[in-house]
Amino acid sequence: MNKIYVLRLGHRPERDKRITTHVALVARAFGANGFILASVVDNKILESIRKVLDKWGGLMHIEMGVDPYEYVREWKRNGGLIVHLTMYGLHIDNVIDKIRDSGRDILIIVGAEKVPRFFYNIADYNVAIGHQPHSEVAALAVFLDRFYRGLELHLSFHNAKIYIEPVEKGKKVIRIA
Amino acid sequence: MNKIYVLRLGHRPERDKRITTHVALVARAFGANGFILASVVDNKILESIRKVLDKWGGLMHIEMGVDPYEYVREWKRNGGLIVHLTMYGLHIDNVIDKIRDSGRDILIIVGAEKVPRFFYNIADYNVAIGHQPHSEVAALAVFLDRFYRGLELHLSFHNAKIYIEPVEKGKKVIRIA
Repeated sequence: MNKIYVLRLGHRPERDKRITTHVALVARAFGANGFILASVVDNKILESIRKVLDKWGGLMHIEMGVDPYEYVREWKRNGGLIVHLTMYGLHIDNVIDKIRDSGRDILIIVGAEKVPRFFYNIADYNVAIGHQPHSEVAALAVFLDRFYRGLELHLSFHNAKIYIEPVEKGKKVIRIA
Repeated sequence: MNKIYVLRLGHRPERDKRITTHVALVARAFGANGFILASVVDNKILESIRKVLDKWGGLMHIEMGVDPYEYVREWKRNGGLIVHLTMYGLHIDNVIDKIRDSGRDILIIVGAEKVPRFFYNIADYNVAIGHQPHSEVAALAVFLDRFYRGLELHLSFHNAKIYIEPVEKGKKVIRIA
């Protein structure tokens, strides 16, 4: 199975703490294997992700403070595919099958406000989850949901200490001894 | 076609400004007809939504500061269906067809941290977008994407002043005179 990493660009610790945390949690919950935060180290976000991994399980490679230009070039040199999520790109319906069928490792670039032209150019696919302004959290979730054809929402997570048993009303949480 | 409104609960203006804005933008971009903010009026969010509607088009009913208990009861009295998105609920795969086929107006409740038991109880469906912690923004997007079977990402918006022409690299924005 190919490896999927998410590279978060343009994170501003004050402003983006919660959005970037949601991006990371979506990466984990929707089956990505890695979450890379470009340019800055944000220990609050690191702590939030680690807490979730510890309690709910799963293995996710995490790196922070990497140079995104270098990281993307290296990914490409290693034969991986680069997907950049942007409302300006090609509609997901027109490219998702090609991306899935490539069988290659995939780096998904998720930007904040302004993404430098470099990333549009180096991407193998600039992919739009529709062409309307909405949310990078939503874009990542829908991309992964389409990529994995919904199977990701049935994953079970390695080493979980806790899981949920679905109920019609209320909450049922199972703690694993 | 049935009407879909999104009711955002538990918004704290300081902490949730960006997440709630993303919820509202996802509601609009993914085809909901209304966005209701419970309990508080947040003019910054109102302004963000209005700006997007003005520029990118679309009609969305917006209300803020409503009593969510009253609103939900009233929705139900009018024959509408209540869907509450929560990781503790039934898996979306097991309920989405029933919800779609109901043909009823749907109020989608999107909570923040703690949702009072009342909403679990009054909901016709407590729906989990997987049973892992992630994001209410992602949950709403995936719910609507499954509900509309992806057609929502091809909507065109009424009275838009601007739209995007998809391109492989870069950006192409068309302004309507």
